[in-house]
Amino acid sequence: MLPDGKPADVYSAPCPSRAALDRIADKWTALLVGALADGPRRFGELRGEVEGISEKMLTQTLRSLERDGLVERTAHPSVPPRVDYELTELGRTLDGPLRAVREWAEQYVNEVRLARLSYDRRTS
Amino acid sequence: MLPDGKPADVYSAPCPSRAALDRIADKWTALLVGALADGPRRFGELRGEVEGISEKMLTQTLRSLERDGLVERTAHPSVPPRVDYELTELGRTLDGPLRAVREWAEQYVNEVRLARLSYDRRTS
Repeated sequence: MLPDGKPADVYSAPCPSRAALDRIADKWTALLVGALADGPRRFGELRGEVEGISEKMLTQTLRSLERDGLVERTAHPSVPPRVDYELTELGRTLDGPLRAVREWAEQYVNEVRLARLSYDRRTS
Repeated sequence: MLPDGKPADVYSAPCPSRAALDRIADKWTALLVGALADGPRRFGELRGEVEGISEKMLTQTLRSLERDGLVERTAHPSVPPRVDYELTELGRTLDGPLRAVREWAEQYVNEVRLARLSYDRRTS
């Protein structure tokens, strides 16, 4: 339900839920939310866990997640300074849906690979 | 499980499940799989249902879904020719996970909007 009383509808282009879908239907978001579901992490820990993510992409995705209220960034006044990232209460509600998407990819990876091979053979 | 006996792991960059995740963690895929979950659709019907998708993006996404074995394209030898798209058995297994992601966007759209407003106020 939107503030104007209309139901949210991701199929409607101007509905703000479309923009929210765009943010969460994203490979890096799916991987980062999964990593943070196990507890707070530092930047370097996330960089190591989510193989292949560039420093720039990790910075950008964490900032978007923080802006959307899904991740909280805490700077500890230690020497050297330490920054932790953790899921907010809202972010934790996203763990289930994104976990299902990650698990689908792992469960059906072979079916997808075989389909691709077969398609490429038919169309080449 | 991969053909070589290793478990699939989306956190490993070279694992083929990462590429599969990249394909399904996508806004247009989430919307198209949802539209097709209600039954076969023609190109123009999908264009109308998934507001804001361009003809080019719809063509590309349908081709990727077909290549990945998630959508079947059927050309009927009628005059004028008619082409239907429908979910395969594999595609239907993806409906549940992607439905949960769409529903999350609709359910939490206001929380995300408020978080963005608050973030932008703090950082501007």
